[in-house]
Amino acid sequence: MTTSPALDAKVQSALETFNLLDEKLCHYSDVLGLLGWDSKTVAPKKGRKFFSKAIGTLSTESFKLSISEEMGNCLQVLTEEGVYEQLDDVTKACIRERKNQYEKSKKIPTAEYQEYVILVNNANQVWEEARANNNFSSFAPVLEKIVTIKKKFAEYYGYEGHPYNALLNEFEPGLTVEKLDPLFKELREKSVNLLNRIQQSSSQPRKDIFAQKYDIDAQKKFNQYILPLLGFDMNGGRLDETVHPFAQSVNTGDVRITTRYLEENVRSAIFGTIHEAGHGMYEQGVNEEFEGKVIRRGTSFGIHESQSRFLENMVARSKEFWTYFYGDLQDHFPTQLQDVSLEDFYRSVNLVEPSFIRVEADELTYNLHIMIRYEIEKALIGGEIEVKDLPKVWNEKMKDYLNVTPDTDTVGVLQDIHWSFGGFGYFPSYSLGNLYAAQMLNTILKEMPEFYTHIETGNFSEIREWLRENIHQYGKLYTPNELIVKVTGEELNAKYLVEYLEEKYTAVYNI
Amino acid sequence: MTTSPALDAKVQSALETFNLLDEKLCHYSDVLGLLGWDSKTVAPKKGRKFFSKAIGTLSTESFKLSISEEMGNCLQVLTEEGVYEQLDDVTKACIRERKNQYEKSKKIPTAEYQEYVILVNNANQVWEEARANNNFSSFAPVLEKIVTIKKKFAEYYGYEGHPYNALLNEFEPGLTVEKLDPLFKELREKSVNLLNRIQQSSSQPRKDIFAQKYDIDAQKKFNQYILPLLGFDMNGGRLDETVHPFAQSVNTGDVRITTRYLEENVRSAIFGTIHEAGHGMYEQGVNEEFEGKVIRRGTSFGIHESQSRFLENMVARSKEFWTYFYGDLQDHFPTQLQDVSLEDFYRSVNLVEPSFIRVEADELTYNLHIMIRYEIEKALIGGEIEVKDLPKVWNEKMKDYLNVTPDTDTVGVLQDIHWSFGGFGYFPSYSLGNLYAAQMLNTILKEMPEFYTHIETGNFSEIREWLRENIHQYGKLYTPNELIVKVTGEELNAKYLVEYLEEKYTAVYNI
Repeated sequence: MTTSPALDAKVQSALETFNLLDEKLCHYSDVLGLLGWDSKTVAPKKGRKFFSKAIGTLSTESFKLSISEEMGNCLQVLTEEGVYEQLDDVTKACIRERKNQYEKSKKIPTAEYQEYVILVNNANQVWEEARANNNFSSFAPVLEKIVTIKKKFAEYYGYEGHPYNALLNEFEPGLTVEKLDPLFKELREKSVNLLNRIQQSSSQPRKDIFAQKYDIDAQKKFNQYILPLLGFDMNGGRLDETVHPFAQSVNTGDVRITTRYLEENVRSAIFGTIHEAGHGMYEQGVNEEFEGKVIRRGTSFGIHESQSRFLENMVARSKEFWTYFYGDLQDHFPTQLQDVSLEDFYRSVNLVEPSFIRVEADELTYNLHIMIRYEIEKALIGGEIEVKDLPKVWNEKMKDYLNVTPDTDTVGVLQDIHWSFGGFGYFPSYSLGNLYAAQMLNTILKEMPEFYTHIETGNFSEIREWLRENIHQYGKLYTPNELIVKVTGEELNAKYLVEYLEEKYTAVYNI
Repeated sequence: MTTSPALDAKVQSALETFNLLDEKLCHYSDVLGLLGWDSKTVAPKKGRKFFSKAIGTLSTESFKLSISEEMGNCLQVLTEEGVYEQLDDVTKACIRERKNQYEKSKKIPTAEYQEYVILVNNANQVWEEARANNNFSSFAPVLEKIVTIKKKFAEYYGYEGHPYNALLNEFEPGLTVEKLDPLFKELREKSVNLLNRIQQSSSQPRKDIFAQKYDIDAQKKFNQYILPLLGFDMNGGRLDETVHPFAQSVNTGDVRITTRYLEENVRSAIFGTIHEAGHGMYEQGVNEEFEGKVIRRGTSFGIHESQSRFLENMVARSKEFWTYFYGDLQDHFPTQLQDVSLEDFYRSVNLVEPSFIRVEADELTYNLHIMIRYEIEKALIGGEIEVKDLPKVWNEKMKDYLNVTPDTDTVGVLQDIHWSFGGFGYFPSYSLGNLYAAQMLNTILKEMPEFYTHIETGNFSEIREWLRENIHQYGKLYTPNELIVKVTGEELNAKYLVEYLEEKYTAVYNI
């Protein structure tokens, strides 16, 4: 940390205290991250009810510290005019992040926040039961309460323009509906158009290849084989199994990802593992010197998702990727694949097919699933629709964009967990990830013309180094908007994803 | 918690605060336990250097809380005459434990404690290198410093009689050399005598049975098979692999044990797993209502060791145990065992053979290894010998008690880790465990005459219930001395272990 000698003693003291508080908060958060991983992977089930209390104690301590008077005083001193400007960029970024957190937490009255925590804790089970029983009306009252509270929180947080902006900001700092609407509009229109043409193509990929059973042990071997080759550092991470795959960073030297193996769906583990590896490599690539500082993690949900999508889609769903790996895959699954050509396999990997379920959607229709959720959230928070209307609105939009109608609410409006935990504003991150990723790809291809040759020859280290150099190392040093401009030279733009999808799928479908 | 209505508001308030502090300290300790397990089992190695700082932050917070003014005030109010007596037994025990911890921590000046922590942190590596290079003199200066500090700590803690009592008390509250000397003297004399007779026996067990290689996958299957049958609850615990096996309790529903598999030593995993299962079942059996209270764990190192030794030796090295399990073991290792009779196998399991290494010692000679360490520790702390004399003293005692002389200090005075972490007073726990276990066995046999029939028929649940009912459930509610008197009706006594060893080994060796 370098600071100007002109900084007076009071500032120096505030800076030292701030750094200690920042580090302590990081340690709590690292530990809580590990505890979360533990409870989802290895913890014996009997202990969870007791251990959740210990997790609660640590969370409370951490929260108290983040809004402590000590933290408030430090932030006040360090953000005074004439002081903040003199600080180095790393310190400035740390202060920016902690200040956001401090102010947001301070804005919500404690009693209301506690009411909200209890509400969403209980909502999960109500949602699970509603989904299991295809009974939206049993979830509706809880969801109404969550929406009401979220609208209040938006008011507490404050916003310009649409109230949903206050919630978007939780996941993608600086993002607004005003910025997002035109991006999504362009992507939606072009995607729907491309989808129509794809569906009319007489040259459809084979569906039988992935309709076979794939031995789980062989899947595990293949996953363990490719993971380090892609650049995921096995000395600084792990791969485990969970029902719902995730990536959890403990620190830059300990990033844990999970996957799941389904005998009847070999794509789930392969692309799921690669997706989480993309998240994991981002966290592994953050500058080690940021350890103990709030900026030591990925900068936003959207940028994070760009790294997972980039690896999963731009890299691992490319022809070149399978040119390199298909022989290995055939060796792992000779019965299933010995008579399948690389071309047929590649086209099957990129099969486009409208379906009910977001998490099973292909690269093209996935964004349409997101649009539906985004539009519904915006309208709910804006007060234009009501919770009771959701099943109807959902199904209408599914019909409009994907030309399918879910058989039940279970595979429709009830399919996602996000609303039950109050995650309004989260869904757009997924499509933002695709948008960022395509824009980054455009830049890489200019800076590294041999990009696809690297993939085709298994030289993934060059690609990881580019991502690390340009994106990973910075953690939260830059805001997502600063970062995309720094990397690509322009603000986020839909045209790169639109062009990428158009080019790729007209080739896959011969249209 | 039931308290007298006569308790006034100040006491009530102190009690509520105390219970909250106690719970918070338990949560920190539960989390630190889990973090310790994680770092020894699953943590990727690159992350450890960062994560040790997070562990340090939590340890410091926990330590500060345990000696906080708030804790001090609560303890003062609650231990006043006329107050403490009115409290219920659970609360009294919690106060007793927290008060001991508080007073001990307060007695050591912070600077000296920090110096000690740094010293022992660095000593581990010095010891490891000294052991690897058979170079005691490179470890001696560090060990001298540790002994000097330990002697000072003993003065700070205070003691009656021998200064070593202050250190013994860390591991076995209430234990003194005055109590231990006669116990160990009797055990040592009888053991040496029995060992001499055993060595002269013309009927020695076979050594070839365990000189074979045993497939590690089959070892794992056998261990996973027997563990739940013995009563270890797999829904409330796990079995993992580490180089140095241990048991780590997170809470009563989450107790994690580890083992190691060696192809050339099948006994290591079998008896190691059963040993740790004994520790684990103790922790799994503590009354769930003690969760969040300091008394939720086993009461002392010695009593803990009694539970592991009881299961490992009294149960799993009995003829009846192998009468039940030997067929299963043969099924797992047909090549190695198909021509080995049960009788030959049982005798081999109980082979007595003086050796250099404590952790590889048999049930009889094990205690002699402990005596050597105990006598040396006592003399070091008492100032009767100096660190530089240790190799000589060690080898003389090995010759006296075991009639063998270590080839090197690596397999002699340098073999154990304990002194490098300052664990003076720890070693006696191992033999105390054997003494307690034999005394408990004597009581069980009176109360449950069908004990060996239960083992022979695989009915381990009755035995676990007895241990749970009489020992496990209480956690730290009783001190070790109170507990052994409650369970067996008398203070700890060497005669039960002496008789048990005499009876067992005269039969095994036909003497």
